[in-house]
Amino acid sequence: MQLQNMLRIPMRWACAPGPRQEVVLSSRIRLARNLADAAFPARSTPPSLKRVLETVFAAARRTPALAGAAFMRMDDLDATDRQFLVERHLISPSLAERQAHRGAAVGDGESLSLMVNEEDHCRLAALRPGLNLAEAYESARAVERGLAETLGFAFRRDWGYLTACPTNLGTAMRVSTLVHLPGLSLAGIIDRLLDNLTKLGLIVRGLHGEGTKVLGDFYQISNAAALGRTEGEIIAAVGKAVGQVADREAESRDKLCAGAGKLRLEDLVHRSAAALQGARLLSFDEASQHISCLRMGHALGWKLPGSLGLASELMLITQPAHVQMHAKKELSPGERDAARAALVRERLALVS
Amino acid sequence: MQLQNMLRIPMRWACAPGPRQEVVLSSRIRLARNLADAAFPARSTPPSLKRVLETVFAAARRTPALAGAAFMRMDDLDATDRQFLVERHLISPSLAERQAHRGAAVGDGESLSLMVNEEDHCRLAALRPGLNLAEAYESARAVERGLAETLGFAFRRDWGYLTACPTNLGTAMRVSTLVHLPGLSLAGIIDRLLDNLTKLGLIVRGLHGEGTKVLGDFYQISNAAALGRTEGEIIAAVGKAVGQVADREAESRDKLCAGAGKLRLEDLVHRSAAALQGARLLSFDEASQHISCLRMGHALGWKLPGSLGLASELMLITQPAHVQMHAKKELSPGERDAARAALVRERLALVS
Repeated sequence: MQLQNMLRIPMRWACAPGPRQEVVLSSRIRLARNLADAAFPARSTPPSLKRVLETVFAAARRTPALAGAAFMRMDDLDATDRQFLVERHLISPSLAERQAHRGAAVGDGESLSLMVNEEDHCRLAALRPGLNLAEAYESARAVERGLAETLGFAFRRDWGYLTACPTNLGTAMRVSTLVHLPGLSLAGIIDRLLDNLTKLGLIVRGLHGEGTKVLGDFYQISNAAALGRTEGEIIAAVGKAVGQVADREAESRDKLCAGAGKLRLEDLVHRSAAALQGARLLSFDEASQHISCLRMGHALGWKLPGSLGLASELMLITQPAHVQMHAKKELSPGERDAARAALVRERLALVS
Repeated sequence: MQLQNMLRIPMRWACAPGPRQEVVLSSRIRLARNLADAAFPARSTPPSLKRVLETVFAAARRTPALAGAAFMRMDDLDATDRQFLVERHLISPSLAERQAHRGAAVGDGESLSLMVNEEDHCRLAALRPGLNLAEAYESARAVERGLAETLGFAFRRDWGYLTACPTNLGTAMRVSTLVHLPGLSLAGIIDRLLDNLTKLGLIVRGLHGEGTKVLGDFYQISNAAALGRTEGEIIAAVGKAVGQVADREAESRDKLCAGAGKLRLEDLVHRSAAALQGARLLSFDEASQHISCLRMGHALGWKLPGSLGLASELMLITQPAHVQMHAKKELSPGERDAARAALVRERLALVS
């Protein structure tokens, strides 16, 4: 467990103000790139993986956008460190699982990340607070251009960037946003809305992407296909759809606040705030629900402990590896629940 | 609704410190007396009931122990007033139901009450905080002696005081205590203990006696038979049994606080305190559970909003008629839940 110092660095993207922040926590652009002269990681050999890791890290160290970045080899990190990076959206669960000759670089206040030898040789990502895909794209492109100075990427004029999985072929870009939809959930229309998004060619997932659970009404919305449209077109389409989702969420919250329902909503939100302040044992699942309600209350401008930004931060720091990183030791699930409750109380007391 | 002024008078018995107060909220001695020259209320006629009410009220007004008492005719009070008196343990639910020629007197900071034409002509009661049956008995006897100056009570040397129901025959005394047993309940041994009490000739009931619900682990423990033993013997037996119950409850709380269970208990208690501070809608049933936990936390000396006395008071003032009396109007159940939550928050904020 060696990444404790990351706890002290404010994450530039996670809890900062941004466009449509009442619904959209963050925007993320991920680009996949592969070296033209090496096999995809899944079909590679350890010596080849090693060479790719060294080559990409060397290129990244020369990339201006990644100046000051931290470079990490997965096999230097223990399971809690790796899980900590997953929880911070800096590496994927699948990179955390396979460690040999895998690495990651994290730069610019954690708003930039680069995974090496995950499904593709390079997966670089840029994050921005709120709904701000254009800026995130510019930032990701700056990293990509820096890497391209020394790396030769696999590319074909007809297929675009070549990737291990055909769904990424073409732009090799995944545009995703982390959204908070408690109003649509309380109104009982969330499932219909998510169905509609799927029909529009979008993918809706839980907090940590593919195969992860939806917690506290936080969803990742991203593009399904990377092929057949330009980067600008994909970004515009996702941005428009997410903007509409944010509108629908805002309408739902307004409706919940109108008339007799308001008191029920206040009861729910204030009870959640109280539970976060009172609990001595708090599972992550329960914490997520209460944090979700607290965040909605702040988004509505209600007087509550903490702030909108702190609610977003709590969603991050109450995750299991974060709780252990704060405690500076491995904890059993029961100990984690106690440490999580203490951490939440402490943070809420500071900002109340 | 005319009894609002009673809200402002501190109840001498309900929330004040007393012996074994961590478990025993109050002690109550009730004496039943009937006039020798009138039929029992159930077999009486309106003119006879009217005469009894006037005669007993006249005697009560001349009784020194009842100096300054308030005299109320039930048919002068609306349903909320009557329910309010029931909630304050000053009249019985059955007196509240039948109003014509029924009355009550309340004296000495609500520690003395007299019901006229309930099941018997006179039912007088004295209350004391904590486990203090002897003082309550002295107080009740002072009222009884005062009434006996002018009233001729039905009495036979062989049967003792004659009462409408044979279970009251003899001493016509009911000794009861209001106890708070959350520790025994959490330890899962409450049912066994209550069974044992029944075998010892005691009756265990809910908050408002016969046929009422147990709420928040508050129980009434009283003697089953009034016959065959002297007043002193009955008081000693109930006092001893209740003292033992208080010992068992204290042991249970100690055990719950030992080792790993302490954190679970803290979680429960602090969550209850938080729910009482956070809720915007609060049913009486839910409030009772949380107040019970809060009261136990105070009894254990933990730092919590409010105080032991306030927790006892909350159990009283969160009852439906009290909530309406505070609001100075009739409320629908939904409005009551909102008013109850507001009242609890206000009281806790004052004493935090």
